[in-house]
Amino acid sequence: MAKFVTIGERLSTTAPAVNRAFTSRDPEPILKRAKEQLDAGAVYLDVNIGPAESDGEDLMKWAVQLLQSEFDNVPLALDTSNTKAIEAGISVYNRSKGKPIVNSADAAGRIENIDLAAANDAIVIALCNGEGIAKDNDERMGYCQLLLERGLEHGMEAEDLWFDPLFLVVKGMQDKQMDILECIKMFSDMGLNSTGGLSNNSNGMPKHIRPIMDSAMVAMAMMQGLTSAIVNPCDLRLMETIKSCDVFKNNTLYADSYLEI
Amino acid sequence: MAKFVTIGERLSTTAPAVNRAFTSRDPEPILKRAKEQLDAGAVYLDVNIGPAESDGEDLMKWAVQLLQSEFDNVPLALDTSNTKAIEAGISVYNRSKGKPIVNSADAAGRIENIDLAAANDAIVIALCNGEGIAKDNDERMGYCQLLLERGLEHGMEAEDLWFDPLFLVVKGMQDKQMDILECIKMFSDMGLNSTGGLSNNSNGMPKHIRPIMDSAMVAMAMMQGLTSAIVNPCDLRLMETIKSCDVFKNNTLYADSYLEI
Repeated sequence: MAKFVTIGERLSTTAPAVNRAFTSRDPEPILKRAKEQLDAGAVYLDVNIGPAESDGEDLMKWAVQLLQSEFDNVPLALDTSNTKAIEAGISVYNRSKGKPIVNSADAAGRIENIDLAAANDAIVIALCNGEGIAKDNDERMGYCQLLLERGLEHGMEAEDLWFDPLFLVVKGMQDKQMDILECIKMFSDMGLNSTGGLSNNSNGMPKHIRPIMDSAMVAMAMMQGLTSAIVNPCDLRLMETIKSCDVFKNNTLYADSYLEI
Repeated sequence: MAKFVTIGERLSTTAPAVNRAFTSRDPEPILKRAKEQLDAGAVYLDVNIGPAESDGEDLMKWAVQLLQSEFDNVPLALDTSNTKAIEAGISVYNRSKGKPIVNSADAAGRIENIDLAAANDAIVIALCNGEGIAKDNDERMGYCQLLLERGLEHGMEAEDLWFDPLFLVVKGMQDKQMDILECIKMFSDMGLNSTGGLSNNSNGMPKHIRPIMDSAMVAMAMMQGLTSAIVNPCDLRLMETIKSCDVFKNNTLYADSYLEI
């Protein structure tokens, strides 16, 4: 089995400093956050430029070229609701370290992002959601089937659709957590790749608790076959847990230095 | 589902200080270690008096009465190869906080400890092992069936047999780790309780790594349905992980204070 793929989430316009840096095309804060995440072991970096309605194409091109030129063609997830910006980003993207990831498609308004990924030989995060949160795994797996078929019809390989069960917040939806974990097992039993923003589970919890909950969740999810996650790679406990689970799953060979790699 | 049951492992003659205290009937070091474990959240305490061939009966009675009188009838696992000592311990054991646990039976030389548990209305740790380490899960599940039938024939409830897959050391048996985890799932699918010394996985690893590996392992094992483990409850990271997994499994209700309980 392949090693777990971490996608660093810290280049996002939801952080005011990143938002300002994108708006003003200021490389320094972006490169700093990128380096921190890569040093911490992130494989992919997510580049979330927000809706970016006016200048998304320019901005995504600028960000892709900035990051890939500075960090040896680091593989990127292109994250915006502006599909033209994603296409623009892909047009200047270097694939030597991995295909671009389109973040994201769903089974409702964003289903055409599957077609976009297919047309551009990209990976796509396929969120198993329609309008609103799926009520159960029958609904989630219905969306999974729909998204998978759409991708295959457009010539994608199944392995390039990374299915996202949508992790849910414990505070309010504690009784749904095992559903999400069972859903990941269903993806895995079908041989499908999977990903998701797993720290959703700990939203609203005290700051010192979140790495504890996120680490427990990632280990349970990796047991179920989760193959990737969108994470804060600067959460040391989380990254240690991911590396340890990769050892138990025999995805990486144990060495006493395994945490340092 | 019931909360995960931790069995504190730190009252063992393998620790020289404990060994000396048992030999000289010195309560203080024993009570100190017991209190540390209970304060850290242990449910049961394992009382490992070693082979105790000469004075095992006296010693186990003394230890059971010492611990239960000091700590409000704390439930105990009686851990020795001297079966008469286990029986002697049970003869003075107070069940108000839980049945005694016989630690342990196996499918080879110690199979009669199943009968002992049955005769004394005790829980028994049923190690799915014959002579030497089982080569695969077919062999483990064969032993599981044998031990289960023996218990049922002697009038036990299935829930009082806690099946132990025997956790294996990563350093040397890395490629067997998923077998153990799959075995736990098989126990769980049969509705059986399970336990084991999960820190076996990290034997021989640097000291700072063991809590990291053990925590990742316990989360994966709890995902598979493990219902108990023999652990060092003073490993804070491990206990935090167990409590978090109990939240995800909806075994305990989340509150911001859940780690403090």
